[in-house]
This record gives sequence, structure tokens and C-alpha cells, in this order.
Amino acid sequence: MADRAVTGADVLVRTAARSGVRVCFANPGTTEMPLVAALDRVPGIRAVLGLHENVCTGAADGYARIAGHAAMTVLHLGPGLANGLANLHNARRANTPVVNVVGDHASWHLAYDAPLTSDIAALAATVGAVYPVASRAEVGTVTREAIEDAHRTPGVSTVIVPADHQQLHAPEPLTGPVTRTARPRVSSECVKNAAARLLTAGRGAVLLLGGTALTRTGQVAAGRVAASTGATLYSETFPACAERGGLPDIDRLPYFPETAAAALGDAEAVVVVGAADPVAYFGYDGIPSVLTRPGTLVRLALRHEDAEEALLELADLIGTDAPAAPAATIDLPDDAAALDGRSVGQVVASCLPEDAIVSVEGGTCGYPFYSASAAAAPHTVLTNTGGAIGQGLPTALGAAIAAPDRPVIALQSDGGGLYTAQALWTMSREHTNVIVLIAANHTYGVLRTELKRHGNPEFGPQAGALTSLADPCVDWVTLANGFGVPACRATHVAQLRAAFSKALAVGGPYLIEMAL
Amino acid sequence: MADRAVTGADVLVRTAARSGVRVCFANPGTTEMPLVAALDRVPGIRAVLGLHENVCTGAADGYARIAGHAAMTVLHLGPGLANGLANLHNARRANTPVVNVVGDHASWHLAYDAPLTSDIAALAATVGAVYPVASRAEVGTVTREAIEDAHRTPGVSTVIVPADHQQLHAPEPLTGPVTRTARPRVSSECVKNAAARLLTAGRGAVLLLGGTALTRTGQVAAGRVAASTGATLYSETFPACAERGGLPDIDRLPYFPETAAAALGDAEAVVVVGAADPVAYFGYDGIPSVLTRPGTLVRLALRHEDAEEALLELADLIGTDAPAAPAATIDLPDDAAALDGRSVGQVVASCLPEDAIVSVEGGTCGYPFYSASAAAAPHTVLTNTGGAIGQGLPTALGAAIAAPDRPVIALQSDGGGLYTAQALWTMSREHTNVIVLIAANHTYGVLRTELKRHGNPEFGPQAGALTSLADPCVDWVTLANGFGVPACRATHVAQLRAAFSKALAVGGPYLIEMAL
Repeated sequence: MADRAVTGADVLVRTAARSGVRVCFANPGTTEMPLVAALDRVPGIRAVLGLHENVCTGAADGYARIAGHAAMTVLHLGPGLANGLANLHNARRANTPVVNVVGDHASWHLAYDAPLTSDIAALAATVGAVYPVASRAEVGTVTREAIEDAHRTPGVSTVIVPADHQQLHAPEPLTGPVTRTARPRVSSECVKNAAARLLTAGRGAVLLLGGTALTRTGQVAAGRVAASTGATLYSETFPACAERGGLPDIDRLPYFPETAAAALGDAEAVVVVGAADPVAYFGYDGIPSVLTRPGTLVRLALRHEDAEEALLELADLIGTDAPAAPAATIDLPDDAAALDGRSVGQVVASCLPEDAIVSVEGGTCGYPFYSASAAAAPHTVLTNTGGAIGQGLPTALGAAIAAPDRPVIALQSDGGGLYTAQALWTMSREHTNVIVLIAANHTYGVLRTELKRHGNPEFGPQAGALTSLADPCVDWVTLANGFGVPACRATHVAQLRAAFSKALAVGGPYLIEMAL
Repeated sequence: MADRAVTGADVLVRTAARSGVRVCFANPGTTEMPLVAALDRVPGIRAVLGLHENVCTGAADGYARIAGHAAMTVLHLGPGLANGLANLHNARRANTPVVNVVGDHASWHLAYDAPLTSDIAALAATVGAVYPVASRAEVGTVTREAIEDAHRTPGVSTVIVPADHQQLHAPEPLTGPVTRTARPRVSSECVKNAAARLLTAGRGAVLLLGGTALTRTGQVAAGRVAASTGATLYSETFPACAERGGLPDIDRLPYFPETAAAALGDAEAVVVVGAADPVAYFGYDGIPSVLTRPGTLVRLALRHEDAEEALLELADLIGTDAPAAPAATIDLPDDAAALDGRSVGQVVASCLPEDAIVSVEGGTCGYPFYSASAAAAPHTVLTNTGGAIGQGLPTALGAAIAAPDRPVIALQSDGGGLYTAQALWTMSREHTNVIVLIAANHTYGVLRTELKRHGNPEFGPQAGALTSLADPCVDWVTLANGFGVPACRATHVAQLRAAFSKALAVGGPYLIEMAL
């Protein structure tokens, strides 16, 4: 008799909980009320509210990058999904598992084209696999398949579950917990081939690391290969999750295609391990899309494959025994120096506590921080792999919820930060230890550069206005306070170091507006 | 020779300017830099920056509802479009013309699946017609077709224009200015049929008005019909643009399907004029989707047809000569009374200056304001037709830019306001006369109601948290200040009246947090 009270929503949440889902980042609406109620009835999943869906999806991305398994979301119909798509795009590009649950109208109501009706499946298909729940009987099995797929791909699986299938009684699936598929291993032929190419190319080889090649183990293995062959090591430009500190100094592949092509174009072999084939971020007239010369690209491990294991096998085959020396010390800026990308990067890197997580979005401080952080204390860095801005703060939030014992720093450019500033509120509500450092230059800096690259060295007033965040300058201290986060402003190095050190000691959430 | 310097972006902007586009709400990225440069080279279109794409698309919606012709947007690739989709959904449901311009990678770069690549056309197709620019030669003609279509549908036309087709020389289209298609007129048979049904049904008839039936002329004509036949008048629940004040008191069709069905279910004839067929907003177990009894629905004018003209013809056929009496006076709350939906609605309605525009989002104060505003000074009300929240502030912004001489009031619930609070910044930058009234009850009120409707009278802590905006309460005064908008808080009637009157006298932007 008790079973008759089990709803489809209960089954969905139970299936998720049994599969290891522990957190649900949600902004529900009317059609998700049974799911909301089920989150109280079924134990094991913590519900976290975002004031905007892109906070929820970005947090789910950040969570899974750190936790190693998916969080779920609950979003409201097509518009709710649309609001969260940009950070689902980023999760897709980062190969992050996300179980993206979207409610739909009651199945029998869809035909009437009520105001909030739209093509949810078409939206969801742009970021991953789509799992529509076609009947109450299949809520459990479809949810289970979606969760398995999210971890197998890895990527975004969207479950679309009509309100009636949530609300009414549904049978529990008989199956046990989800079996987690390990990443596929690459063949030993593939490893041997890469080894041969590396040995032939010697100092003319590049190893381009991405995905799970950027674990601590993966980087140490890559360092052993580089030490024996003379190969140059690069990380992909925007790694989803990379260990840094106490490791060989692995720079990121440059962003602009001219410099990236210069880094790769002379190589006799470019061995990619867990990274996508290197291509230009944008297409520029007269600059090729492909950054490698024909015949030089060697794929050791694809993005979804076990890149770490491939590197270990490669290192056992051709690497030295001793790990490469870690990077040296960080240059420290003068206390009285003004804040700029370089000085901020150095201060942040030098103050970083061991085991910190740093979510980096935006180039102003992001690139200089990466240069300085090789010599920082061991930490994990998360970057915006997909390029849809508004990811840094939600990702930091999700990471903090995944690892409550680790300090999280969001090193965030102001333009992207303003996309999802609502994440500050959830940081406050959930008492997350996130310290937000806003690079406040009140400019879409990269666009000013791009205007010039596109032949507009002297842009006019409208282009100036469209690339400026001044007039008025957003007051981040006040904004943070409005969302319940204490904050201060720093204008020079000593101030930033003092404020950052104090925030690290006290714990977040805390925001520092860095006047650049 | 000079013509060789004309780029595809120039052609697009020139075509838009020649077609009457005067404003471009933009948040561009690298792939839209030629368009940004063209906005300076080509005169006639004012560029307005939004800090988030949903501000841009919502502003384009609000602009066109007031201006009567489309604004354009400039959005960045798939993620930029995704961010703006929710308010494009609303524009689609409101039948608002929007020329939605989205940049794409250089056409030759698309195949390489660079990080920001995604299926833009699939996203755009969920909100309207898609116009991909396949070559430089067709930039002008495709843009022109998209603009014509946006006004003909009316709705959202998305132009997808790759960066190379923007950047390089393109031929100007030879064609002259766009010809604006008038809304199709309904046949006189259709009018006669509706007249016959209304006369037969007498007091058992309902006229349900939407779209252009809600102009001043349309409502007066509807009043003449009601006066002669005894028919009851309703407006659709969420009109895109309705005139109010000095007119017959036309209530909105109730939101919840039980009450809406009660309003329509006894009718012998429900004549819809410019409105969609009345269906339940959401499907609830045991409650039919269709709100009318079989055989009672009569379609006088579809949403895209000339509903105003149809009503005029109907009134000439069967209406009285004299216009119906306008609504009486507004009940005024006690000065010392606390703020609640009713008292806020009455204060706002009673203070409203003639010719104001009121953008209403959210039920807390929205419904009571509508009840009170029939007796207010003549004004225009804009509501959220599509139901994707986060529309009220951007719509107010766009309306203010369309009508700089009219005061704009945004009567906004806090939950929806937090979706697109970034609109406050553009209100400040553009010195718009918008007065924002935030109904701050720190709750997703409608969801609390829906939880109960879904059989959860005593919801648990997680459901409580997911429907609460408290802990911490967002401080709207501080938030507004952070975005450069002065603000204050009001806790009772006299305070609200004083603050609102002063803000009206001084002019916006200004925000009042109403503590409910």
C-alpha cells in the first residue's frame, strides 16, 4: 500500500540518490513541484537554490569537476533550460557529467500550446543527450540511463519529465545502483605509436595535455616523458580542471592563433593527450583554423579516454624515472605597486593556501595568474573550457559545495562576473568558503583587442560604449553586500595582499573588488 | 572605390536603418566586431549595451511593444543567443517584432568545432524564423527578408551572420525601404458570424480581447458591443500591451484554470478577438486544458490579425453609439497601512501620471494593480505574455527608450527581478525615466501556492528553501546602488506614496523596495 504513494518524482530522486547524486542545483517552477516535494521525502540529496538557472548549471559543472561525479539540476520548462544553456555548453566542452532535469507540462496538456510551451528537446540537444520520459513506468529507467550516459560520455544528459509523470504513482525500477563506467583505456599500439613519434621528433615534439592528463599523476608522467625526450609540454588553453603547484611548469597553449600556431607549427609531432585537436579559438581572415602542420598531429588519448593512464604507460615506456623539477619561486610585486593583471596574478599565487581551488574566468588576471601559479602551493584550477562567459562564479560555488573543506577562490573578470552575479547570493545562503576576486577594469578588455584585430584601431563612440562597463562603473562592494556577501575594495598590492590573507583566514564568502 | 570599403556588416546595419530600425540592444563578442564597428560607420541606429543578453532581448520586446516597430539585437554566437532566449520566448508569445542578429564563426571556421561552436539555428528555431546568411552577396536581402517577416508574423526573426560575411566587402542590396505589411483584416463573414453568435447568446456571451483588440479604440468598440448585447468583456490574462484608464473596466481572465473555466464555462459563446484560444496556463490533474465548452468558441480575429478593426466593424454592426462608462474611482488605503498587493496596487494606480507606461511582472502586486488601474489616469500596461520570468525590468528599459517622454514604471516581483537585475545598470547608463517598484516579499509566492495545489500543504525544509528568497534577504536598495541607480525602501502606504510621487517628479531611474 505504501508503494502506491511513491510518485514518479520520488522514483526520479531515489534513482539519482542511489546513483550517487548528492546535490541538486535548482530553480524550479510549477511543473517541477512534485520533484521539489520529493527532495524532502527522499533522503540523500541536498537542494541548493540558484536565483537564475545559469547559476544552477554552472554550479553543477563546478561541482562535478571537483567531486568527480554528477550533480543534478531541476530547471523549469524550456525558458528555464534556455537560461541555463550557456553553462551547460561550458559543461559539454569541459566533458563534465551533469544530470540536467527539466520539467515539462503534463503530457496531455502539451498539445494546447499554453504560453510556456516550447521545444525543450531541441534546446537540450544543443548541449548533449536528451532523455524524454514518455510514461510514468519509465521514469526510473530513463533517469538511470541518463545518469549512466552523463558519466560515460562524459557530458550533459537532459531528462525531460512531464509534470503528470512526476505527480502520479510510478513503479520503482528494480535495478540496483548505477554502474559507473571507467574512462576507456587507449590501446598499447596507440601508446607505442606516440612513443615512436616522440622519440623521432625529440626536441621537435610537443605534448598537449587536456582532460585527465592534467591530474597530478598525469602531469608528473608527462614531465618524465619531457625530461627524456626534450618534448615541450603545453596544457590546453582552457583546461576544465588542472592540478598546479609542485609540478613541472606547464604553460597553456596561447589563446591567439598566431602565437598558438607559432608554438605548434614548427613541431614535427604534436601529441594530444585528453585534449581536443588544437584549432584557432576564432577564425581570422588569413589565419588557418588548424594550428598544426599536416601530418604532425598524433592523438594519444581522446577527450573522453583515460589520458592519465595513457601518460603513465607512455612514461613507463620512454620517460625518465625521476619526476621533473617543479617550478621555482614567484616574482613578488612591490607593496606600493598598482594592481594590474601581473601583480594580481603574483599576489594571488603567492598567498594561495595548499589545496585551494581556483576558478578563473577572464583574461585580465587569468593569464598572468596561470604564469605565476606554477610555483604556488599545490592547488586545483578550473577554467572556462567552453567560452560562454558567466561561468566563473557559479563554478566556484559548485566547487565549494563539492569540497567544503577546501578554500575556493574565484578570480573573475568583471564583464563575465556581471552575467551571473546572482551566484553571490547562493554563496551567502550556503555559507560557502568562496573568496571572490573581481578584476574590475570596467571594460570588455578582450573586445577592445578584437576591435583592433578586426581593423578598427580608432573605434567610434558606439563601439567604445559597447565595450565599456564604465558610465556608471558597477560598484562590486555594494553589489556583493546586496546579495549578502561582505566585501571590500583594493587598489594596490599591499591592500590586496592584506585583504586576501584576511579573507582566507576568516573564510568566505567574501568579495574583493580589485581596481585595475 | 568607396563601395569596396562597404562591409557585410555595413550592409546589414544600413538595411536595418533603412527599414526603420532605430535602436540596437547589444552584447557583442569577437564574432560581432564588424557589426559593432558598422554601428559607428552607418548613421541612424543607437547602440545600447546590456550586461546580459536577456536584458537585450527583453528590451527589444519592450521597445517594439511601445514603438510599434522592431528594434534589433546583436548577440554573440550560440551561448549569447541562449542567454537571450527566455525573453525571445516572451516576445514570440507577445507577437512582438524583433530583429534578432546573432554572429557566427567565420563560415570556413565552423567545421573545426572550436570551443564556442554550437547549433545556433536550432536554438533560434525555438523562438521564431531563422535567416542564415549563407554568403556575403545575400547579407542585405536576407536581413531585409528577416525584418519584413518580423513585422508580418509578427514575431522574432533571427539573422545568423558569420563573421567573414560581416567583415568583407558585400554588395548593397538595390531594393528600397522595407514595405511594412499591415495586419491582415478579418473577413466581413467572420464579423457577421461573431455578431450573430453574440446576439443569440446575449448576456451569455464573453468577448475575450488580446493583441490589438486592447488598443484604446479596440476597447471602446468592445465596450459598445458589450453595452448593446450584455456580453462580458475579458482581456487575455497576460496582454502584451493594453491601454488602461478612462475605458470600460475590462478584467483579465483569471489565471488559475478553475476560476478561468468558471468565467468561461457557462458562456454560450466565447468570442476571441486577437487572443489565443483560452487554455489552462498549466495542466492540473483532473482539470481540463480547454477552458471553453465544446461549440462555444468563436474566433473573430487571430493573434496576428487586425483585431482592432474587427472590433470596430463588429461595433458598427451591433454596438451602441455611446461608449461605455469608464471605471469609477480607486479605493485608497490608509496612510498607515502596511504594504501588501492590494495597497500597493491602489497607491500605484492612484499616483499614476497620465500617459505612463507600466511594465508588470509577478502576481503579488500585478493582479491587484490591474484591478485598481481601470480607474487610473490613461496609461499603457505591458505584461509577461510568455511567462518566462525576468522580463519586467528589461521590458521597462526598452519601453523607456522607445518613449523617452513618457514615465515608465516597472511593477516587479522580486523573484523575477533578480533574473535580470542587470537591466538596472542600462537604465542608469541610458538615463531612462524608469521607476522600479520591487515587491519584496522574499518568496517565490506562486510556487508556495503551487506546492499546496500539488498536494503538499505542509512542505518540508528543502521545498521551503527552494521557494524562499530569504536567508539572506536581497537588499534591493544596495543592489540598485551597485548598478548606479538611486533607491529607497518603503514599508507602509504613506512612505510608498511619498517616495513614488517624489520619484515621478524628479524622474528615473529610481528604485523603491517595497517591504511586503
